[in-house]
Amino acid sequence: MSNSSAPKNNLGNFFEDFRIGQEIRHATPRTVSLGDVALYHSLFGPRFTVQSSDVFAQGIGYPRSPLDDLLVFHIVFGKTVPDISLNAVANLGYADCRFLKAVYPGDTLNAVSEVIGLKENSNRKSGIVYVRSRGFNQHGDAVLDYARWVMVRKRDEAAAAPGEKVPELPKAVDVAQLGAACPAINSAAYDLALAGSPHRFGDYQIGEKIDHVDGMTVEEAEHMIATRLYQNTAKVHFNQFAQSKDRFGKRLIYGGHVISLARALSFNGLGNAFHIAAINGGRHVAPLFAGLTVFAWSEVLAKADLPGRSDVGALRLRTIATKDRPCADFPLKPALGPAEGGTRGSGDDYDPAVILDLDYWVLMVK
Amino acid sequence: MSNSSAPKNNLGNFFEDFRIGQEIRHATPRTVSLGDVALYHSLFGPRFTVQSSDVFAQGIGYPRSPLDDLLVFHIVFGKTVPDISLNAVANLGYADCRFLKAVYPGDTLNAVSEVIGLKENSNRKSGIVYVRSRGFNQHGDAVLDYARWVMVRKRDEAAAAPGEKVPELPKAVDVAQLGAACPAINSAAYDLALAGSPHRFGDYQIGEKIDHVDGMTVEEAEHMIATRLYQNTAKVHFNQFAQSKDRFGKRLIYGGHVISLARALSFNGLGNAFHIAAINGGRHVAPLFAGLTVFAWSEVLAKADLPGRSDVGALRLRTIATKDRPCADFPLKPALGPAEGGTRGSGDDYDPAVILDLDYWVLMVK
Amino acid sequence: MSNSSAPKNNLGNFFEDFRIGQEIRHATPRTVSLGDVALYHSLFGPRFTVQSSDVFAQGIGYPRSPLDDLLVFHIVFGKTVPDISLNAVANLGYADCRFLKAVYPGDTLNAVSEVIGLKENSNRKSGIVYVRSRGFNQHGDAVLDYARWVMVRKRDEAAAAPGEKVPELPKAVDVAQLGAACPAINSAAYDLALAGSPHRFGDYQIGEKIDHVDGMTVEEAEHMIATRLYQNTAKVHFNQFAQSKDRFGKRLIYGGHVISLARALSFNGLGNAFHIAAINGGRHVAPLFAGLTVFAWSEVLAKADLPGRSDVGALRLRTIATKDRPCADFPLKPALGPAEGGTRGSGDDYDPAVILDLDYWVLMVK
Repeated sequence: MSNSSAPKNNLGNFFEDFRIGQEIRHATPRTVSLGDVALYHSLFGPRFTVQSSDVFAQGIGYPRSPLDDLLVFHIVFGKTVPDISLNAVANLGYADCRFLKAVYPGDTLNAVSEVIGLKENSNRKSGIVYVRSRGFNQHGDAVLDYARWVMVRKRDEAAAAPGEKVPELPKAVDVAQLGAACPAINSAAYDLALAGSPHRFGDYQIGEKIDHVDGMTVEEAEHMIATRLYQNTAKVHFNQFAQSKDRFGKRLIYGGHVISLARALSFNGLGNAFHIAAINGGRHVAPLFAGLTVFAWSEVLAKADLPGRSDVGALRLRTIATKDRPCADFPLKPALGPAEGGTRGSGDDYDPAVILDLDYWVLMVK
Repeated sequence: MSNSSAPKNNLGNFFEDFRIGQEIRHATPRTVSLGDVALYHSLFGPRFTVQSSDVFAQGIGYPRSPLDDLLVFHIVFGKTVPDISLNAVANLGYADCRFLKAVYPGDTLNAVSEVIGLKENSNRKSGIVYVRSRGFNQHGDAVLDYARWVMVRKRDEAAAAPGEKVPELPKAVDVAQLGAACPAINSAAYDLALAGSPHRFGDYQIGEKIDHVDGMTVEEAEHMIATRLYQNTAKVHFNQFAQSKDRFGKRLIYGGHVISLARALSFNGLGNAFHIAAINGGRHVAPLFAGLTVFAWSEVLAKADLPGRSDVGALRLRTIATKDRPCADFPLKPALGPAEGGTRGSGDDYDPAVILDLDYWVLMVK
Repeated sequence: MSNSSAPKNNLGNFFEDFRIGQEIRHATPRTVSLGDVALYHSLFGPRFTVQSSDVFAQGIGYPRSPLDDLLVFHIVFGKTVPDISLNAVANLGYADCRFLKAVYPGDTLNAVSEVIGLKENSNRKSGIVYVRSRGFNQHGDAVLDYARWVMVRKRDEAAAAPGEKVPELPKAVDVAQLGAACPAINSAAYDLALAGSPHRFGDYQIGEKIDHVDGMTVEEAEHMIATRLYQNTAKVHFNQFAQSKDRFGKRLIYGGHVISLARALSFNGLGNAFHIAAINGGRHVAPLFAGLTVFAWSEVLAKADLPGRSDVGALRLRTIATKDRPCADFPLKPALGPAEGGTRGSGDDYDPAVILDLDYWVLMVK
């Protein structure tokens, strides 16, 4: 029993509340269902066939269609918000995100985070919290593992810093760590016509750029419906009364919404990239607001064989999403031009239309 | 076979069409599913763990996660609309609402109402219809029972009043009537960390007030999607063409939408109040429109042990919802100030931001 | 393996890419679920009881509630878009659309089209493509079969016409072809009170007109959520950035959305028309935009007994949908007035509020 005079509501943790090595079991385990799958389809319009057809999935080696990888990510991420980022100033980055096991309708997901780093800002008003978060299914199997860092306000500027440690995180997930969530695929049974793209792993070249062509406009109702589905409680997405007093005057759209839109758009050009195996890093370069239209393009950064597997190969992709800006000319940095797109730049020199810069590994049928 | 010259469309019942003692079997039985559950999550963002995780629910004594109580309420309520309130001027109140049996995905709900009272208004243009409505599952078990009264227009002002009787309705549901829909709970297995709140029944004090902190903005698409999900056909929620000629000029949001928002917000402070056992009464103090942000606070009106049960206790709550008005100072009545909040007032003296005043019993783990 | 230097994205087929007799297996088979059903309910609010209650459906002879016929139509139609109509100027018409087998949650749908006609326009900028499209379930059984013609742009105006043939299509589906998707109905078990209408097949008269009374306003989020649910990728529905430069300046709402709205509204007057057996033809007279309110009325064009069946009869209906225009006076053609409504007119003389003119067969219990 808690102290009965304690306030009953949760105002979230502040920077000084965290401790290095602290483990947080997050609340609200969630049984995922075909209802979630249908909503995910309706909100983003993905067309990757493995996630669309049980028959297709079974034909190539899955027991049935798994959940979209990003739906799993969003649900696990959502659980961490009330403990980690309710008082966040900014979500700074992710790294070392690996999808470890396929998730199916009927599975129940829960999440645990460990505080792996802390660094107070020099103004002592806030600090950076580094966490490693893991999602588990009802059997206790890890389905997702990722690091994230976020700038969190202090409750009391005078409070002592709770420790200082900046963790080492890999720039990219090692190829040997890819593919745990993907069963052995029967490539011969993989029907390219049903999958909607004739292009296999071998058809893609390092350095190749692909315009995903289509644009998708986002409405307030859509991003809120999505973000509530994940039980993500970050205030900035839902509370127009408070946001109207903010510098933007508008609700901010959950960054994961942009990732899901970009992934769904990327089907047009990457139709056989049926599984996200890992996210190496991601940056929300600028906020997205309702009423704007999202476009995307991708570059193939690298290609890799998976140790011991001949069914699928891994493409390392960089996907750039923009707002109100088609991507036929691969917008990235205004000064250097698109020819320099393959080089990472600092945030300051992005094309003003760019909202997402995502580096990830997908698996594609060979 | 009906009279083939009869009009085929249904314009709804008018006040003079009702008879005391009349029983109405409502149309459109509905098999509820995990699709409905996912939509309910996406529209309101509830985080009560019993309804979120089959594993958690099973751990404490449910066969699986039951439907959110209010989803059951809305579906049963929706069925009554075409017969009872299509020509309503105002939905005046509810009383004696009891949740009698848990509802699970796959159950089929239907509804029956009995006219328990009628009172013509002195202007003879309308009258108050009192009904007792009951929802049943496919086995014929009652899952919900409530009284409601609504002001309904007359078709013909000259028509005789169809009877006059004002039923006696309890001010509050008796404690002995609570808990039928809640199985015996294994409190030891109830994991407070997973549930998201450390506060058990014993931690709450009578008179305690809780600010639920968060705000949720409502969009037109959201309340229409919700209200159609319940097959509720009340015209004022859907028809902007007609509403633009109305005094507000806007679609009115279904009052039950506000109740569901307030309930979801109340998780922040009442996280272990996993079941609504009864609604003693409710008043929609003012209408809500799209674009406004809903906030809520609650007061503990009473606490009660349930006869023969040591697993859960009952909290009688008064939850107040507001629009575009945070609730840190517990807004209720402008003249008397928040210190008087515990006393019921007439509708005229509510703070202009208040939209809902709901009195209900929840069960909380001991 | 495809040519690795080929562009990876799909810009769709242009008029000169089609060949008479060409068969196209469309991508993205889709396992339908109760999640799709819940979304369909939430977006349109249908109340036909066969599709709402498993218990009701089982009572009259179905194994469980089938999917709404139009949900099946939209999903099959959606699959054809990336191959047939990505470069469409206008969707010109449908004919000979027959529902051949009931579809249930868990079924997996795929689609195949055959090019049955081609006719270049005299300006050589575009041409009409006629296709017969068929939807199949996971057993290879045809569930839907329809012809559609659409005006498609040429990539290169100088390209030779790929053939010329205008297929003969029936003005209406023959009565002998109706009913394959409807099992034998136990009329005695069909509960008219639960179904929500007292009117059986015998109660309807040829020439009878029915105002469906209610209006439904459409929001941008709603039509996009619906259209993505069907994996329909037609650009005009989703991309406000591009549409803002179009002559309307707005996203166009998928024509099938209007059909579903009209069908859901038609419950009020046609409550026992539980199955669409065939669509004879349909015309999207004018576009619909978000913010407008849809109304509908219907006329009984014909009645027919089904060969060898006494359980259900077929009504041939003409349903007219309007925007921001109630239908109590059956709007159709401004000059001739509603008394002429039974006669087909050319598109030019429709009432400016009319957006849909649909001719179809429904089955109704006898």
